Amino acid sequence: MSGKLYGLGLGPGDPDLITLKAHKILQGVPVIAWPAPDTGPSFARAIAAPHLPGGQVEIPIVMPMRTERFPAREVYDKASVEISAHLDAGRDVAVLCEGDPFFYGSFMYLYERLALGYDTEVVPGVSSMMAAASAAGRPLAARNDVLSVVPGPLSDEELTNRINAADALAIIKIGRHFNRLRALIEKLNLLPQAIYTERVSLGSERLMPLAEVPENTAPYFSMILIYKGGEDWIHALPGSKA
Amino acid sequence: MSGKLYGLGLGPGDPDLITLKAHKILQGVPVIAWPAPDTGPSFARAIAAPHLPGGQVEIPIVMPMRTERFPAREVYDKASVEISAHLDAGRDVAVLCEGDPFFYGSFMYLYERLALGYDTEVVPGVSSMMAAASAAGRPLAARNDVLSVVPGPLSDEELTNRINAADALAIIKIGRHFNRLRALIEKLNLLPQAIYTERVSLGSERLMPLAEVPENTAPYFSMILIYKGGEDWIHALPGSKA
Repeated sequence: MSGKLYGLGLGPGDPDLITLKAHKILQGVPVIAWPAPDTGPSFARAIAAPHLPGGQVEIPIVMPMRTERFPAREVYDKASVEISAHLDAGRDVAVLCEGDPFFYGSFMYLYERLALGYDTEVVPGVSSMMAAASAAGRPLAARNDVLSVVPGPLSDEELTNRINAADALAIIKIGRHFNRLRALIEKLNLLPQAIYTERVSLGSERLMPLAEVPENTAPYFSMILIYKGGEDWIHALPGSKA
Repeated sequence: MSGKLYGLGLGPGDPDLITLKAHKILQGVPVIAWPAPDTGPSFARAIAAPHLPGGQVEIPIVMPMRTERFPAREVYDKASVEISAHLDAGRDVAVLCEGDPFFYGSFMYLYERLALGYDTEVVPGVSSMMAAASAAGRPLAARNDVLSVVPGPLSDEELTNRINAADALAIIKIGRHFNRLRALIEKLNLLPQAIYTERVSLGSERLMPLAEVPENTAPYFSMILIYKGGEDWIHALPGSKA
């Protein structure tokens, strides 16, 4: 009988923000697979580390950071073959995922290769968007607000349309687009409502009004939250410039 | 010294989908407050139940379901006074929240009344949107998709604009708008990509293509997910009609 495949959401970074379900699976699963950059540690592996009993087989999925075109098919093809071998041998495999597996996660590239062939369970996790709002001390959205999650690499025109069509926004995948995004948000008169968040829930967490960020770039694990809503108290909270 | 106020995200319903952090707080906090309808049990209280050691003080926040205009100020004013009395006496208070406290949650109405006066921590939780995508077996969004969360009570015109402006959607607050929403989604040729989810992660969970839902209304804890993206494999998954 084949093993079971888990897509395991591990939350935004604080090991205490994993679910009881993910914790139980980490305690018992014989094989884990996790994404890693070509240099430096795996963030997903680090979140799981305090919960691992030790002795499990580990499959690093090393993704060159400079890959221009995602998905890097060969990397996922190769990882799928490795994972399949364990599943075929009856061993369960947990793929470690930062945040939530299905919220802009790379797990989908393994899922599309394996889910139709093996018993698969996706365990949802706390997404960094929810953690960012908690850390910033302001709601993501309320009542009949439309909340949009908008990737930073979109063009200025697309971004403008998407920002105008929403009441609340989380802008993700900022990186080298940071300066362009800040200029656009300023042009749209939304700078006073914009909060910059970085590495939320970790010791290295940073939060500040977007207007006050000194850098011109942002790391991968950063996000801009914008709340246009008319709640005066939200804009009176610490961190708001309004 | 005053007690600490927690806004405690408890996840979508399965008690195993609460975080280790929420679990620890539930084990130790002397006072809990939780929302409840005027008849029937509190969903948030039910999620927390297996994790409570017993003996804690409980503050039900009973919200008449027929209230036309939210927030029902008097209810939150009264609850804030009760909670303040415990905080002033040095007792920590955890407000139990379904899903994530700041994702369309009613916790914000207590937060606006209490957060500036007391040490407050919001503990993020797994939102029902993430759990619905996991249960449906399809990503919420990927790559440079724009994901929008759209409340069902909006007008047809607003809904059409918001749906057209996004690549992936979660339609929430469906209830008595179900028939109108289904007709609109069909008119926009998105019915084959629409999945209906209800009470995800609970024993009473239901998932099916939107086109196959027999009822004309939907309960409060339901959601419609639409993924417009061009990934063929997504639309080949069980549950898709394409």
